[in-house]
This record gives sequence, structure tokens and C-alpha cells, in this order.
Amino acid sequence: MGGKLMAKPQAVLFDVFGTLVDWRGSVHAGLAAFGTAQGISADWLGITDAWRGAYKPAMNAVRTGALAWTNLDDLHRGALVDLLPKFGVPALADAQISELVGLWHRLTPWPDSVAGLSALKRQVMIGSLSNGHVALQVRLAKHTKFPWDMIFGADMFGHYKPDPEVYLGACGFLGLQPAQVMLAASHNEDLAAARALGLQTAFIARPMEFGAADERAKPNQDWELVADSVLDLAGQLAG
Amino acid sequence: MGGKLMAKPQAVLFDVFGTLVDWRGSVHAGLAAFGTAQGISADWLGITDAWRGAYKPAMNAVRTGALAWTNLDDLHRGALVDLLPKFGVPALADAQISELVGLWHRLTPWPDSVAGLSALKRQVMIGSLSNGHVALQVRLAKHTKFPWDMIFGADMFGHYKPDPEVYLGACGFLGLQPAQVMLAASHNEDLAAARALGLQTAFIARPMEFGAADERAKPNQDWELVADSVLDLAGQLAG
Repeated sequence: MGGKLMAKPQAVLFDVFGTLVDWRGSVHAGLAAFGTAQGISADWLGITDAWRGAYKPAMNAVRTGALAWTNLDDLHRGALVDLLPKFGVPALADAQISELVGLWHRLTPWPDSVAGLSALKRQVMIGSLSNGHVALQVRLAKHTKFPWDMIFGADMFGHYKPDPEVYLGACGFLGLQPAQVMLAASHNEDLAAARALGLQTAFIARPMEFGAADERAKPNQDWELVADSVLDLAGQLAG
Repeated sequence: MGGKLMAKPQAVLFDVFGTLVDWRGSVHAGLAAFGTAQGISADWLGITDAWRGAYKPAMNAVRTGALAWTNLDDLHRGALVDLLPKFGVPALADAQISELVGLWHRLTPWPDSVAGLSALKRQVMIGSLSNGHVALQVRLAKHTKFPWDMIFGADMFGHYKPDPEVYLGACGFLGLQPAQVMLAASHNEDLAAARALGLQTAFIARPMEFGAADERAKPNQDWELVADSVLDLAGQLAG
């Protein structure tokens, strides 16, 4: 399945959370380990999902201007402090909150991500295009060994996806026209925003991002490419 | 020789032109090859030096506000068009000028640069901090295989070194205080600007940058570290 690939892109930019890393499994494991170490019993998987659930409303507050520019660490911090009492977790020290916010810097890649990015890097420029800020992403890439040619973070643009400034800003920094750039993501709405601006698109199916497979893990448009892994995408682009 | 290293830096940022790549030898070779292919005889080494000589005045025009933000490709283009007639080179087509401007995207590293950066990358975060723009630097890193954790280009800040916005902007993107960051460069004035803002400094001697050894290739302050290669720097930091 897949649409009509235009000319081969010169750069492929990747969404990161969900597309390249298993944020849910990683954060859940980190929270559970913290709970064990601290002797705190709680629904850590529920907290993980609630934490991620707070992500879009928080970013939307920035996107609409209701909240001044705030990076993802600080959005994560505020959300966690709000939700922990609702799950019956006793108040934590600032340093403990910081430790937990740091879990998002040490997420585990999907098994194909590093090999796929390495294969793709031999063909084209590869970069991240994430709502994570540069500081988070540099540390995450050290941890995962993602072999980026370039990291693009939301703080470079002062905007969060799907604001157009992010997609067009990255194309501009690369000196490329939107049609020369492909966005690869496991989320239809991210690809839709990129397509509306003229970028090419690749859907990467990540059925386990939210646990049991759901409709969000299926393409809902004729994206230029549809792949079931980054390695698959690299193979399709190699033609 | 070397001053007083503070705590080990968490990131080392590098000047690129001269510090990591032999711009003079590379551009001269590229111009001479172009001349041979086109049947144009000229003082290509003189043109190389004059081209680089136009670099600081052009950047200073941007730094003082006399010229709106202009990236290095466009500064290079304007300077080359101005100087070629002075060297008796006949008018070139736009595409030929673009080809020559592109020589600055394909410079040859000094022999120790890639191995040194790779060794350093195992210890700390490594990034470029160059007056080259992101598009130039991504292509240069593909060509040289520099294993950057992060590329910082002047266009991310809308300023050229030694403007403070560049040094402090990179520290901010990394989420680090200036004292947690070291600038490594072969140019005293670059290090002086970084030191004035609180960054640590490492001088890397590149006696062949301008051809015959000259005073510019010697440290003129007690920089925290002084090294004769990037590998030497990595060894000193590993302590």
C-alpha cells in the first residue's frame, strides 16, 4: 500500500515518540522501577498513559498562545505534579520529579529503529523532527545511538507540531523545498500537516505504541509510502 | 601548556573551518580542478586566500547590521563574483559559481579529526559551533563523516561568531551552563569570545591552516587545554 512517490526525497525527517521509540513501555518500566526503589505502590501504567494524555492539551496551550513557550521537560514536569495525587502517590521531592521527567530522555528504541536509520543514512540526509527540545533529543540520541545527520527540536522554532513553522522551518534549515523532504511518522495527523505543506509522507505502522493494536496505528490517507518498520522504509526508498 | 580545567565539560563544541577541516587545501584543489576542466588558467591559491579574506568583512557587515542576515553560501557567492575579475578569470555562469560555492560543503578533514571526534563522543556530547549554516554543515558532515551529536549553525541564531548569541544560544539549546561547555578552536579570538561568556576553552594548533606556520597558530592566552590534534584533546579530557 502507498500513494505516488514523487522524486526520491533528499532528506527524511522522523517523528520520534512512538515512531522510533517505545515511550509507553520505557516510561512504564522507569516509573515501576522508581516505585519499587521508593516503596511506592501505584498504577504505574495508568500514570504513564495519563502522563502522555496530558501532552496534547499542554502543547495546545502553547500553540494557541495561552501559555508562553515551554519546553517538553517543563510540560512533563507540570503534568506529572498534577496527576500523581490523583493516583494516590505521595508528594515527591523536586529532585525525584526531575529524575522521572528524565525518563523521557532515555526511551528504548523499537528493535528496527537504529538499523533502519543507519541504512537510510547511506541514501539520504536523516533528521529528527520532534516536539522534544534539542537538549532532550541530544541526550535521547546518545542513549539510543540514533545516527542523526541533524536534530530538529521544537525549541528551534518556538512552535510545536502540527504548527507549519516546524515543518517549513526544518526544510528551510536544510536548504530544501518541501517536496524534496519526506516526513516519516506513525501518526496520521502529523503526516497530514506535513502533506498540506507539500512534504512527502511515509507512514510507519507501530501497532504496539498504545498497547493493544488500535485504529490510530493504521494509515488513513494514501501516504506516499507505508512501511512496517524503518528498515522496510529504507528498503522501499532504495527501490 | 594549558590553564586550569574546571570540572570536566559535559559538551565540547567545535569551530569547523580551520579547526577540523583544511579549507585552504580543499578549496584550492577544487578551484584548480575546475580551472583545468574549464581550460582557465589563474592563480587559484591566490583566489583561495582572497576568497577567505573576504569572509570577515562580509560577516562583520551582518554583525553590525549593515547587511541583513545572509548565510555563508550567499556571502561566499558575492565575494567570489567580486574577486574573480580581479584575478583575470572570465565571467562564469551562475551554475558554475554555485558549483564553486559548493566546494565549502566538501572540505577535507585534518587526518585526526574523525578519530578524535569519535573518541570524544564516547566521553561527552560533541557539537559543531560554526559560522556555517545548517544546510552547509549537514552536507559537510555527510562528506567528512563527522559523528556529531548536534550541529549548531549560525542561522539558528541569526548571528555570526564572535557575537555572544551564538555561544550562549548553543549552551541554552543543550540545557547547560556556559561553564559546563568547552569550545575547541584553532583561533584565539573565537576562544576569547567564549571565555568572556564563561565557557571553558581548548586551543587546537593547526599550523598548516594558512600554509606556512604563523603566529595565529599559537595560543595567546592560558586556555584550559592546549592540544595539537582532536585526538590529543580527547586523550587529555579522558585524563
